[in-house]
Amino acid sequence: MHFTSEQRLDDGVREREFTLGEIPGTLWTAGSGPAPLILMAHNNGLPRREPRLVARARHSAASGYAVATIDGPGCGERPRSAADDQARAELRRAMRAGEPVDEIFESFVGPLVDNAVPEWRTTLDALLALPEIGGAVGYSGWTALGIRLMVAEPRIAAAGLFAGGYVPRAQREQAREVTVPLLFLLQWDDEGNPRQRALDLFDAFGSKEKTLHANLGGHTGTPWFEAQDGSRFFGRHLK
Amino acid sequence: MHFTSEQRLDDGVREREFTLGEIPGTLWTAGSGPAPLILMAHNNGLPRREPRLVARARHSAASGYAVATIDGPGCGERPRSAADDQARAELRRAMRAGEPVDEIFESFVGPLVDNAVPEWRTTLDALLALPEIGGAVGYSGWTALGIRLMVAEPRIAAAGLFAGGYVPRAQREQAREVTVPLLFLLQWDDEGNPRQRALDLFDAFGSKEKTLHANLGGHTGTPWFEAQDGSRFFGRHLK
Repeated sequence: MHFTSEQRLDDGVREREFTLGEIPGTLWTAGSGPAPLILMAHNNGLPRREPRLVARARHSAASGYAVATIDGPGCGERPRSAADDQARAELRRAMRAGEPVDEIFESFVGPLVDNAVPEWRTTLDALLALPEIGGAVGYSGWTALGIRLMVAEPRIAAAGLFAGGYVPRAQREQAREVTVPLLFLLQWDDEGNPRQRALDLFDAFGSKEKTLHANLGGHTGTPWFEAQDGSRFFGRHLK
Repeated sequence: MHFTSEQRLDDGVREREFTLGEIPGTLWTAGSGPAPLILMAHNNGLPRREPRLVARARHSAASGYAVATIDGPGCGERPRSAADDQARAELRRAMRAGEPVDEIFESFVGPLVDNAVPEWRTTLDALLALPEIGGAVGYSGWTALGIRLMVAEPRIAAAGLFAGGYVPRAQREQAREVTVPLLFLLQWDDEGNPRQRALDLFDAFGSKEKTLHANLGGHTGTPWFEAQDGSRFFGRHLK
């Protein structure tokens, strides 16, 4: 893991860019002692520099966590294959035409998840070797990746998941294998995410402790107090 | 309003019993300055001395609220009519026999709500005249009473509602008239409360800001952190 840049932000958070082989990532920390780690990923592999993710990461870092994110294969700054570009173009076309998009999402998001998992695990190995990181590990964000990662990765002790992305069938079936405490966030009027499918997914998780927070409004309307609730959820399970 | 007894509890909370005409009630406060008021009622008119309600009330008082509850007509220490006793007996019989209980609940809970509302409003008048109470008013607990009270009572600025009780049809229809911020608590496996009906009720409320918290487990299994989340919800709206 090579740190390529560092800045101290006005909320006292230290933001460092890193590379790990081909993987570009960002690590946010505050304070000096070892802090529990939160792996944070955006739904459907959106870029790690997306302002909403950065705001959540800085809030969590200021609350006493080390927060890390990467751009997985085909995401953010990473090169895209011709197949990726074609899938994205086909998705835009179908949405404009008002056609069903489930199968396109399936064939686009499925491989994104599959290809991202080994890189997140490699990143987790490297992060846990840093002296500023210690204690339990949490996961926050992209539901499909979170399910796949938690099934493969016993080091993740708790997760806050956003219901708003496409969850491939394979991950919907794996949900019962997830057993760690969950906080599952749903936007009640999310235009791109059928509500009943999200409720069914919440029902399917195998966790004994799981909480659903649903708020009024569309996909990007999650109220800010949910970031605070998320920090308290992780506080109960990682600290 | 006559205070009939007072004790100082080990968490620093002052617990006072009162009567207001025929109405018996309890007021919990902490500190000396005027505090925002939370009216707290148990689902289906359970007694105000029920330990789970008392624990929530003391937690909220220790968090800086004045909390008050009463036994409405036919509830707790109040005399019961022969009709009340008959309805309760019929309800027990039907539940033992595995018969549908909706209509019995309807004819039992409907009048409980109707009769309780004027007494809660009278109590609110008296409480707001006390020097230790000031600021906004919240409501917590019994959903059916909360809906009916909020529709009649513009002084209630926010409410935390428990989905686990029977909500008469009249209140389900009034839900769209409720417009204040809501926190709606649902126990996902509540044996006596159909989940879909609770989700439909959440959907029906007219409030622009409403949040659903659903937790795994049965009727009495609400996790303790929901009491803390409730205090923070009221902190955003009453303080």
